[in-house]
Amino acid sequence: MKEAIKKVVENNDTRLSKGFDFFIQFLIVVSVITFSIETLPKLEPKTRFILSAIEIFCVIVFTLEYLARIYIAEKKGKFIFSFFGLIDLLAILPFYLSFGVDLRSLRILRMFRLFRLLKLVRYNKAMRHFTKAMLLAREQIILFMAVTLVLIYFSAVGIYYFENEAQPDHFASVFDSLWWSIVTLTTVGYGDVYPITAGGKIFTFFILLIGLGIVAVPTGIISSSLTKAVELESEEK
Amino acid sequence: MKEAIKKVVENNDTRLSKGFDFFIQFLIVVSVITFSIETLPKLEPKTRFILSAIEIFCVIVFTLEYLARIYIAEKKGKFIFSFFGLIDLLAILPFYLSFGVDLRSLRILRMFRLFRLLKLVRYNKAMRHFTKAMLLAREQIILFMAVTLVLIYFSAVGIYYFENEAQPDHFASVFDSLWWSIVTLTTVGYGDVYPITAGGKIFTFFILLIGLGIVAVPTGIISSSLTKAVELESEEK
Amino acid sequence: MKEAIKKVVENNDTRLSKGFDFFIQFLIVVSVITFSIETLPKLEPKTRFILSAIEIFCVIVFTLEYLARIYIAEKKGKFIFSFFGLIDLLAILPFYLSFGVDLRSLRILRMFRLFRLLKLVRYNKAMRHFTKAMLLAREQIILFMAVTLVLIYFSAVGIYYFENEAQPDHFASVFDSLWWSIVTLTTVGYGDVYPITAGGKIFTFFILLIGLGIVAVPTGIISSSLTKAVELESEEK
Amino acid sequence: MKEAIKKVVENNDTRLSKGFDFFIQFLIVVSVITFSIETLPKLEPKTRFILSAIEIFCVIVFTLEYLARIYIAEKKGKFIFSFFGLIDLLAILPFYLSFGVDLRSLRILRMFRLFRLLKLVRYNKAMRHFTKAMLLAREQIILFMAVTLVLIYFSAVGIYYFENEAQPDHFASVFDSLWWSIVTLTTVGYGDVYPITAGGKIFTFFILLIGLGIVAVPTGIISSSLTKAVELESEEK
Repeated sequence: MKEAIKKVVENNDTRLSKGFDFFIQFLIVVSVITFSIETLPKLEPKTRFILSAIEIFCVIVFTLEYLARIYIAEKKGKFIFSFFGLIDLLAILPFYLSFGVDLRSLRILRMFRLFRLLKLVRYNKAMRHFTKAMLLAREQIILFMAVTLVLIYFSAVGIYYFENEAQPDHFASVFDSLWWSIVTLTTVGYGDVYPITAGGKIFTFFILLIGLGIVAVPTGIISSSLTKAVELESEEK
Repeated sequence: MKEAIKKVVENNDTRLSKGFDFFIQFLIVVSVITFSIETLPKLEPKTRFILSAIEIFCVIVFTLEYLARIYIAEKKGKFIFSFFGLIDLLAILPFYLSFGVDLRSLRILRMFRLFRLLKLVRYNKAMRHFTKAMLLAREQIILFMAVTLVLIYFSAVGIYYFENEAQPDHFASVFDSLWWSIVTLTTVGYGDVYPITAGGKIFTFFILLIGLGIVAVPTGIISSSLTKAVELESEEK
Repeated sequence: MKEAIKKVVENNDTRLSKGFDFFIQFLIVVSVITFSIETLPKLEPKTRFILSAIEIFCVIVFTLEYLARIYIAEKKGKFIFSFFGLIDLLAILPFYLSFGVDLRSLRILRMFRLFRLLKLVRYNKAMRHFTKAMLLAREQIILFMAVTLVLIYFSAVGIYYFENEAQPDHFASVFDSLWWSIVTLTTVGYGDVYPITAGGKIFTFFILLIGLGIVAVPTGIISSSLTKAVELESEEK
Repeated sequence: MKEAIKKVVENNDTRLSKGFDFFIQFLIVVSVITFSIETLPKLEPKTRFILSAIEIFCVIVFTLEYLARIYIAEKKGKFIFSFFGLIDLLAILPFYLSFGVDLRSLRILRMFRLFRLLKLVRYNKAMRHFTKAMLLAREQIILFMAVTLVLIYFSAVGIYYFENEAQPDHFASVFDSLWWSIVTLTTVGYGDVYPITAGGKIFTFFILLIGLGIVAVPTGIISSSLTKAVELESEEK
């Protein structure tokens, strides 16, 4: 019995186990779509009922999967406190907790249901590559992330001194300027805050000329280490 | 006779066949420009008449080309259902269908005329490179596209929880937030939706710092595999 | 006499010739700054007079330089119709032409004065690298520029069909949509035009996901061939 | 005594010296956060008092560190006028100067306190890499920065001629157009200034198609030389 379950749940070589994997992934996606539809305003009671039914079904399947994985694990404690064990628990816990608590906290609890997306890591190769690549380039990413943060902070202080008097609402403090800083240096540029004084515009001119090269570095490191990780894996095959 | 047509339509080594290729490409561009001008509001009847005349001429040439290609094909059924065969058909079909249907559906039919642009694939090396490169890197693109989609979805849910109460119009549901998510993470930043709460701004700050590196990966893969495909082709020469 | 002028104007090994090069470059920059200041509205007559004086001085020096270059050229006709010969002529011509024409056309003539910036090409290594790199990667750039243009056009037609009815002002024709297309796919995103219908937003979502990778290719090719050209030059040394 | 201080302040091998390094870095960060909070409008007197107390404590520690570094330096004059010596002085000077001057200039003096961030260079490897990489690629960066500036200027003049009459407020002079130029070519696109005439839009269309590749070059050079510098350092280990 234990062996049969193990074959289906853990391995990925028979038709049945592949079908099981696909079914769980399908339910994760369904569960996420259900979650999204629930956020729509002015839902009819009938729709709410159907969404609840789908949600309950998903939770039942995920619970059975979780129990099955505990059952087949040789060291039960090790599995429960492993990365995937905790993710599997977090994917179902919000549902059970929502019975015992009042309605106010439900909103935050519902958000924890999104941990189910992390369950996809078990099945998705790209996710594995991503976590692997991040670990490989960890040191470099932290170093340049620090440089980027210093640059963003420096830009924020600079623009604060130039724009604070002219736009006391938008550049009220260095913290408000930090919002301008990240939106500008990532080139998003919403247009909700921008310099209007000549000094602020000249400062932005030079910050953009110099800064973009620095901000692009962590992005470049993540991209290149990701592609490296994929190449390594394909060579191993 | 058949051989003579084949020489002109299919091969690309004589002066006549090169002229034919250029003529068809020229008509595709003319047809696309005609299509664009037709969308201009307040056209005079005279202009409309000229545009129609050009359109009819293009369709006649494309129809003759299509029939010639069927005529010279050794396996007629194979050509008709091949990629280029279907494209050639789709390029002329909207015109003939527009006689049999009422005016309401005409609008959508007209759009199908744009399939003519895909006819350029037959002549354009870059397009061939592009489809080739996409096939080569297919697996990687799908994998990282999935990661990108998960990140975009995650950002959308996050901003929904922070901004929903403050801006119930712009962040009405997770679907509305997805619009914010794609516009922000691709750094387009129209400025029609942006966070206004402190929580939403801090969330955006970190999503931008981390997210840009991930969103850039599929872009990087497409770019690098395209340049690889071009290099391979130039080595073959 | 001819030899002495040649040493100063053409070569770049003596102190005097280096000084001459620097002086011409300095005058180009001065001339460009003068041009910029002249565009400022509400200039005092005194400032206008000073700017005119500087302009006349620059033109006199550039004219003398031009005549000297003709004088020292062995084949005078060849120099006059060479790239640098034409640039040198275009840099001074607008000034002399402005005496013979009425005031209305002056505005456009003044703009031609900017050709002086191209005179810097003679002195600036980076400019030389740039033109060299562009020639090397010419074929690839044209190919992918075509793909990019097709994508931009395709996006424009798509958004036109989705948004034309909802926003007849902003998406009046395919030509108006092309403006949206270039601003969105280059991620500039001014925010003057953006989709407001659900269909248009979903279309933009997918166009952005797929399109950015394609639009980035010509940029990537230019960048990489520029750095290649620099490396080649530094190896030659 | 001198040896004992040297062991703690300069070296980085004992537990005590590592703790000292960490403590100084911690104080720099605290000092920067204090600086940011001080910019918040409507602070209570009590908060101001606490912030002043923290500031005084930081300055005392930094002063003691500065004196200790002078004390242990073999050539005192050389240290005082070295890069790090000057940075250490600039980090404490604004505080002492603020006693002797009136309140008006205080604002600018406070900003100099940010030089403390540069003190992190001593401890942060990434900063060292960055300055090293910038020195290595200095020539290339200057060359292409020049090309980028010429392109930005050229775009500004172009848009000035197209938009000046239609939008005399936003494109009042070439200097105003330069603001549009940098915001557009870096793809920030705030949306405060954008072309509205057909000519200006077509000009922007081609400038964006061609210009992005050129503007991306200095960014690419900084990124690639930074990653090279990191690789070199990791090979040395």
